[in-house]
Amino acid sequence: MATAGEVITCKAAVAYEPNKPLVIEDVQVAPPQAGEVRVKILFTALCHTDAYTWSGKDPEGLFPCILGHEAAGIVESVGEGVTEVQPGDHVIPCYQAECKECKFCKSGKTNLCGKVRMATGAGIMMNDRKSRFSINGKPIYHFMGTSTFSQYTVVHDVSVAKVDPQAPLDKVCLLGCGVPTGLGAVWNTAKVEPGAIVAIFGLGTVGLAFDIAKNFGVTEFVNPKDYDKPIQQVLVDLTDGGVDYSFECIGNVSVMRAALECCHKGWGTSVIIGVAASGQEISTRPFQLVTGRVWKGTAFGGFKSRSQVPWLVDKYMKKEIKIDEYITHNLTLGEINKAFDLMHEGGCLRCVLKMHE
Amino acid sequence: MATAGEVITCKAAVAYEPNKPLVIEDVQVAPPQAGEVRVKILFTALCHTDAYTWSGKDPEGLFPCILGHEAAGIVESVGEGVTEVQPGDHVIPCYQAECKECKFCKSGKTNLCGKVRMATGAGIMMNDRKSRFSINGKPIYHFMGTSTFSQYTVVHDVSVAKVDPQAPLDKVCLLGCGVPTGLGAVWNTAKVEPGAIVAIFGLGTVGLAFDIAKNFGVTEFVNPKDYDKPIQQVLVDLTDGGVDYSFECIGNVSVMRAALECCHKGWGTSVIIGVAASGQEISTRPFQLVTGRVWKGTAFGGFKSRSQVPWLVDKYMKKEIKIDEYITHNLTLGEINKAFDLMHEGGCLRCVLKMHE
Ligand SMILES: [Zn+2]
Ligand SMILES: [Zn+2]
Ligand SMILES: [Zn+2]
Ligand SMILES: [Zn+2]
Repeated sequence: MATAGEVITCKAAVAYEPNKPLVIEDVQVAPPQAGEVRVKILFTALCHTDAYTWSGKDPEGLFPCILGHEAAGIVESVGEGVTEVQPGDHVIPCYQAECKECKFCKSGKTNLCGKVRMATGAGIMMNDRKSRFSINGKPIYHFMGTSTFSQYTVVHDVSVAKVDPQAPLDKVCLLGCGVPTGLGAVWNTAKVEPGAIVAIFGLGTVGLAFDIAKNFGVTEFVNPKDYDKPIQQVLVDLTDGGVDYSFECIGNVSVMRAALECCHKGWGTSVIIGVAASGQEISTRPFQLVTGRVWKGTAFGGFKSRSQVPWLVDKYMKKEIKIDEYITHNLTLGEINKAFDLMHEGGCLRCVLKMHE
Repeated sequence: MATAGEVITCKAAVAYEPNKPLVIEDVQVAPPQAGEVRVKILFTALCHTDAYTWSGKDPEGLFPCILGHEAAGIVESVGEGVTEVQPGDHVIPCYQAECKECKFCKSGKTNLCGKVRMATGAGIMMNDRKSRFSINGKPIYHFMGTSTFSQYTVVHDVSVAKVDPQAPLDKVCLLGCGVPTGLGAVWNTAKVEPGAIVAIFGLGTVGLAFDIAKNFGVTEFVNPKDYDKPIQQVLVDLTDGGVDYSFECIGNVSVMRAALECCHKGWGTSVIIGVAASGQEISTRPFQLVTGRVWKGTAFGGFKSRSQVPWLVDKYMKKEIKIDEYITHNLTLGEINKAFDLMHEGGCLRCVLKMHE
C-alpha cells in the first residue's frame, strides 16, 4: 500500500488520565518494525477490561494510552521477517499472543504465551521497547498489545490472527475477547458435558441480559437479593446438592467464593473468568476442595489465539456459534464516550464502533 | 464362630476426653445388626487424624470414643443381609465408604459416598442410630465408622474391603488411610506424568523422613527456614517458573497457599491432602487461577475404597507399591499412648500396633 513505510496520521481515542473522557486525537502511527504488523482497524467493541484500566483501578495501567482489544481489521503493512500475514489480510488482533515457540506455547497445556508479554505489559513494542503511537512526538502507550481504539494500530506478529476474508468484520471483532473467553471457559477449561447443571454468576448487564440469556439456553434466573440465605446455599438447595460447573464472570472475590461453594461435593468445578480488582483475594475453607471441588480460572477461554480464532470465525460462518446476539449497539469512534456510558448504565451487552466514516 | 450373635468383651483404647491419655478398657462390642460386620482387628496403625480428634481441635469430635481408622483384621460375624463378606474373610476397614448405589458412587466422578456419612459423622451405626460399643452399659462413640483401636469393632458393610488372605495384615493395614491417600493424590487427583516436577510440602516427620524420602525418589530437600524469600518464590526460582504439581500434606493453610503459588503459570496443579484446623481458610489472589493454576483436594486419594483397596493390596503383593518402608515402629495395643508420643516427637512415620498378644 501507498502508506507502507510511512508514518500514518489517523484518528484515535486517547485516554490521557484515569476516568477522564477519552479524547479523539490525530495520532501518528509509526511503520511496523521487524516482527510487527500495522493493521487498519475497521471495527472495535468495548469490553469491561478497557473500562477497568481506564478507571485507574488497574495498578499496571499506563497513561496516556490507547485502549481497546476486541476488534477486526485489515493488514496495512508488515515489518521485516513477518511471513504469516501480508497486506490485505483480514485479521483479528489477539491480546493473548501465540508464538508457537516459547515454553508455554510448546507445553501443550496452556494458551498463555511468554514471548511478548513483558513488552505488552509495559505498553511498548518488543523490538525497540518503544511505542509506535505518538502525538506531535510525544509517545502514547499501547494497551494489551492491541490498542484497537485507533484507526491504525501496530501489533506484534504473534498477536494477530488471519481470518476468512468473507467474515463480516463488524461481527467477528467480538472474537477478539468476550465470546471466545466464555465459550472456551465452557469447552476448554471446564469441559462441560451435555446435561450438566451449570451456574453463571454475572449475566452481563441486568435485565436486558436476562432476555438474551434465554436465547442462549439459560433456564433459571436467581437474584441473590431475593433470598436471606447465602446464594451458594440457595443454589445447593435448588439443585439437590450443588451445580456441576460454575462460572464467575464479574470479578468480585465474594462471588468467586459463592461460585465455588455452590458446586456439588465430589466433582463440582468452578471457573474464574472475571478479573478482580488489584490486591483482592479469594478465600474458602480447604474442606471445600478436599471434598472434591476444583477451583480454576481461564484467560481467553484457554484458546490458542492465532491457531483457534480463525477456527472460531469458521464456526461462526457455519452458524455453529452465535455472535450477532451479543451486539446491542452500533456507534462510531467519535461516539466512544457515549459507548462507555452505555456499558456502565447497563443497557448494553456489546457496542461495536465503526472506526472509519 | 462361637461368638457370633453374642456380645464380645475385649480390650480397647478409650478416649474419654481430649488430650487425656487413652485408657485400655474392657469394652462390650454388640453383635452386628443388619448391614453390619464385626471385625477382629489384628493390626492398627496410628494416623494424624486420630491425634487431631484426640487433641480436641476437631469440633466434630465426640467423647468418649474409640479412635483408629488404619487397620486390618478378620471378619468375626456378619449381620442380616450382608453378602459381600463372610466370617473368616481378611478385611481392611474403610473410613471412606463405597455403597455403589448412591448419587456419589454412581456418578463415576468421585470416591465420596453418601450412604452412611450421617451416621459415621455422629459416631453411631445407621441401623438404629446407636453405638455398638459400651462399657457397663454406657455407650462409647464410634469414630470415622471404623474405631480400630479395639480388638473387635463393628463397621457398616459398605465400609469394609475384602482383601487377599495371603497379604500380611501387619503391613497392608496401612492401606486403610495414609498410603492410598498419597498414591491416589498423585495417580488419581493430580494425574502426575513421568518427568513432571513435583513439590511435596510436609515430608512426614522431620529428619527421619528425609532419608526415607530419598528411597522414594525425592531429589531435593528445601527447608523454608533457610531462606528469607517466601518458599513459593524459592521454588519458582529453583524450577525455572514453578512446579508442575504440588501436594500439601500438613494441613496448614499458609502452606496450602505456598503450595498453590509455587506452581507453574499455565498448568501447575496443587492438591490439598492435609486437613486444616476447623474454621481456617485458604486464600490467594484470583490471578493465580486465571493464569492457569488449578487448586484441588483429595480424600482417600480419590480411591473407591471397597473396589480399589483390594487392588492396592494386590499391587503390594506384586511389589509394585511400597508399604514396609513407612513402618518405623511396632508396638502393642497396651503401648498406644507411647505410640502417640512417638508420633508427636517426630521420630516415627508409622507405628503399627499388634492388637492381640
Ligand atoms: Zn476483553
Ligand atoms: Zn509463545
Ligand atoms: Zn488417616
Ligand atoms: Zn455410595
